[in-house]
Amino acid sequence: MTNEEILGVTVLNSWKIVINRFTKTISEFSDEQLQQQAAPGRNRVFYLVGHVIAMNDRMFPLLGLGDRLHPELDQTYIANPDRALGDPLSATDLRRAWSEVNNKLTTAFGGFTFEDWVQKHTAVSDEDFVKDPTRNRLAVVISRTSHASYHSGQAILAK
Amino acid sequence: MTNEEILGVTVLNSWKIVINRFTKTISEFSDEQLQQQAAPGRNRVFYLVGHVIAMNDRMFPLLGLGDRLHPELDQTYIANPDRALGDPLSATDLRRAWSEVNNKLTTAFGGFTFEDWVQKHTAVSDEDFVKDPTRNRLAVVISRTSHASYHSGQAILAK
Repeated sequence: MTNEEILGVTVLNSWKIVINRFTKTISEFSDEQLQQQAAPGRNRVFYLVGHVIAMNDRMFPLLGLGDRLHPELDQTYIANPDRALGDPLSATDLRRAWSEVNNKLTTAFGGFTFEDWVQKHTAVSDEDFVKDPTRNRLAVVISRTSHASYHSGQAILAK
Repeated sequence: MTNEEILGVTVLNSWKIVINRFTKTISEFSDEQLQQQAAPGRNRVFYLVGHVIAMNDRMFPLLGLGDRLHPELDQTYIANPDRALGDPLSATDLRRAWSEVNNKLTTAFGGFTFEDWVQKHTAVSDEDFVKDPTRNRLAVVISRTSHASYHSGQAILAK
């Protein structure tokens, strides 16, 4: 492997470790337990999972990977706080959406070359990217990895 | 900037964002509030902070950056669960150690070239590194960034 290939595999591994840990936590909750709150008065696990699915799903257009799979989750799990709206999907469908979105992203990241990683994401203009070339896909994926890890640490507290 | 330089700055930024967010959370807690638990029966914020300091401090030898600053924290904050031992330092000293360790790491990461990032960490043998070149410094730093983010998400629940 070249150093540039190593970079890609390293970033992909870091993403996989975080997503797999969160997946394991979710799999250990029953559908009823997904309704529990991370701490009293805080977000339910169901909300945290919906939120991370929606934020990760936004990476498809953001990284130029095509259309979103679940834009219908934004209203409940990004635009609003927990319990403001009812859950628009069942626990079974939530689990399915989690796998679907994250697996498809993992496959896409696995195909990125070093040049792909340092390309700009779609929310930054060509001009701004020239001024700040760190607004790239790598920054988005590491940031979303940290974001998933943040909520993974919360979800496990509901156990 | 070359693509290699962009990689380094991108990883450094991701680290800074997570550490700065955690620093902000800590700064908003009084010394008494640091004694609060993230959720009932779970780790106190004081323990979470001590734990992240100790784990980050381990990066100095792991990345070949010199001696640790606070090896004395491991016994209480890594080897044992919360409340098994008394806190060996005051809240003031905890806050100081937090800044000291993370600032020194941030400075060191800022000096890494692309070649430095993909070099092996010290806990892997030359032989094993040949087999798996993703056991490099980049993997360690992204992993510790996710680790800090995980506990940052917990600490904020005590607010």
